[in-house]
Amino acid sequence: MRVFITGIEGFVGRHLVMELVKAGHEVSGLYFDKMDLDEIEALAERLYRGDLRDSVSLNQILDSARPDAIVHLAAISFVPAASSDPRTAWDINLGGTLNILEWIRVAKPDTHLLFVSTSEVYGRSDGGDLPFTEETPLRPANMYSATKASADMAADQYRSLFSLRIATLRPANHIGPGQSENFVVSSFARQVAEAALGLGDGVIRVGNLSAMRDFLDVRDVVRAYRLVLEQQITGIFNLGSGKAERISDILDSLVEIAGARISVVVDKERLRPVDVPIIFISREKLSAESGWTPEIPLIKTLEDTLKCWKDKLRK
Amino acid sequence: MRVFITGIEGFVGRHLVMELVKAGHEVSGLYFDKMDLDEIEALAERLYRGDLRDSVSLNQILDSARPDAIVHLAAISFVPAASSDPRTAWDINLGGTLNILEWIRVAKPDTHLLFVSTSEVYGRSDGGDLPFTEETPLRPANMYSATKASADMAADQYRSLFSLRIATLRPANHIGPGQSENFVVSSFARQVAEAALGLGDGVIRVGNLSAMRDFLDVRDVVRAYRLVLEQQITGIFNLGSGKAERISDILDSLVEIAGARISVVVDKERLRPVDVPIIFISREKLSAESGWTPEIPLIKTLEDTLKCWKDKLRK
Repeated sequence: MRVFITGIEGFVGRHLVMELVKAGHEVSGLYFDKMDLDEIEALAERLYRGDLRDSVSLNQILDSARPDAIVHLAAISFVPAASSDPRTAWDINLGGTLNILEWIRVAKPDTHLLFVSTSEVYGRSDGGDLPFTEETPLRPANMYSATKASADMAADQYRSLFSLRIATLRPANHIGPGQSENFVVSSFARQVAEAALGLGDGVIRVGNLSAMRDFLDVRDVVRAYRLVLEQQITGIFNLGSGKAERISDILDSLVEIAGARISVVVDKERLRPVDVPIIFISREKLSAESGWTPEIPLIKTLEDTLKCWKDKLRK
Repeated sequence: MRVFITGIEGFVGRHLVMELVKAGHEVSGLYFDKMDLDEIEALAERLYRGDLRDSVSLNQILDSARPDAIVHLAAISFVPAASSDPRTAWDINLGGTLNILEWIRVAKPDTHLLFVSTSEVYGRSDGGDLPFTEETPLRPANMYSATKASADMAADQYRSLFSLRIATLRPANHIGPGQSENFVVSSFARQVAEAALGLGDGVIRVGNLSAMRDFLDVRDVVRAYRLVLEQQITGIFNLGSGKAERISDILDSLVEIAGARISVVVDKERLRPVDVPIIFISREKLSAESGWTPEIPLIKTLEDTLKCWKDKLRK
């Protein structure tokens, strides 16, 4: 299968390239940042540099790639970035998605689209409505999730109105080796790795430790994407573990794995202005449709993430 | 008060100019189509021709107008138009709203914004969830309402994140003299007027007559907008009659008022592909906050609409 990936240079994109190429698929994709492309350049058929917001050049790229399927990963996914520059977040997260939907509608309506939404579209929980299912209403609680909820609704309308073959996946937080330290678990892992290597001051700076989130290993996530592509699944699906882990427990596990002496300090700048205390989402619908279940235990994910940071910091 | 109206040349815009000028406010506004501006040109301080999607020229216009308040009416509001050209609908209905929100955030954060959403953001009803309140989740059922629900969510985030002074109004269908015949009641009224004047074939072509909708006279709508502006109200409010009228009853009333001999034919092209059988919305929150209640009885609205068409057709 010829698969085109947007945001191919990102955390998920890199893992997805490996997953798909290993399974014999032909991969190309769009990148925006040109750092560190060697590894995916070696695996992908072709990489295109471009901006999702520029529909003219995006159309040319897709006309040339003629994919069987598109996995649309590219987004401003860091919540504070969307809050501080909302127009850019809307233009990329919604406008970029519309550009892809329009290319499919106009140029190649048989393209299978896997649109990566987020479980954050469901917003806050009163506790009684958990786990969120695909029927839970969208009540985005911050600017980032408003942009994603809008793109999710747009994809839904394109699917029903034009009978497009769209799978909307609403994944939980994903973690694992290679994630930006903008995200909480990777930030912890980097700081724990530094402490373990005797770098820095042995102090971990953290945000809200009481929040509970649904975490998946990125390698489980990309395996789900491959199964959705191979089975040509369409519709809306949560992608989660079905349970919530407390952030403080994750930090404790990382410290335990590292065996280092560490003190923890709350850093107000790391507290999100609008926070959601607990989220976890059901995964029954996707498991029933695709056979996917998460396979990598949390402890293994944390070990690998820590090792990845240690390797990077030693260089 | 200096009020800037987008979509000032539209059905609601024209009535709003009259309402605001009569109450002593200074009105300016943006128009896109330049037909028939004489009446509002005589009342408004200044009219600017422009395209909401062009943020550079919109910013220049708003910098020059420096309004105390903006009423953002401009939208692709005809459902089939949004379905057949979704990109344009998204760019105007969401992108145009973002351009206004960004101008306010960056250039004049004390501007009071009255953003006109729609009760269609609530989507279909299972009957048991009526009337829709402001707490009802947004479940848009067509492309038009998806664009409006997205803009509604964007306005909500700008309000909470940047403490902007935004009133989001979610009005029911509005009807009255001057409405485009793209909308059902005006289409009926035109056809009934033609029959009454002996023009055409005496046949009324209609879509789905069993649908039930919440209708407000446009003059009640613009009075609500004036009250929201004058009282500087912020937050999210339904604007409806609190009850649903059957479309077939409205047609019967129009025929009765006209006293003409008319036959009714169902025209498949007038049936919306995605239809919502019944909608009505609560108006308690806005009534409690502003003192507004609808004052014009339906029969008066229909008489005036019919008279307006007769006057137009006689010319």
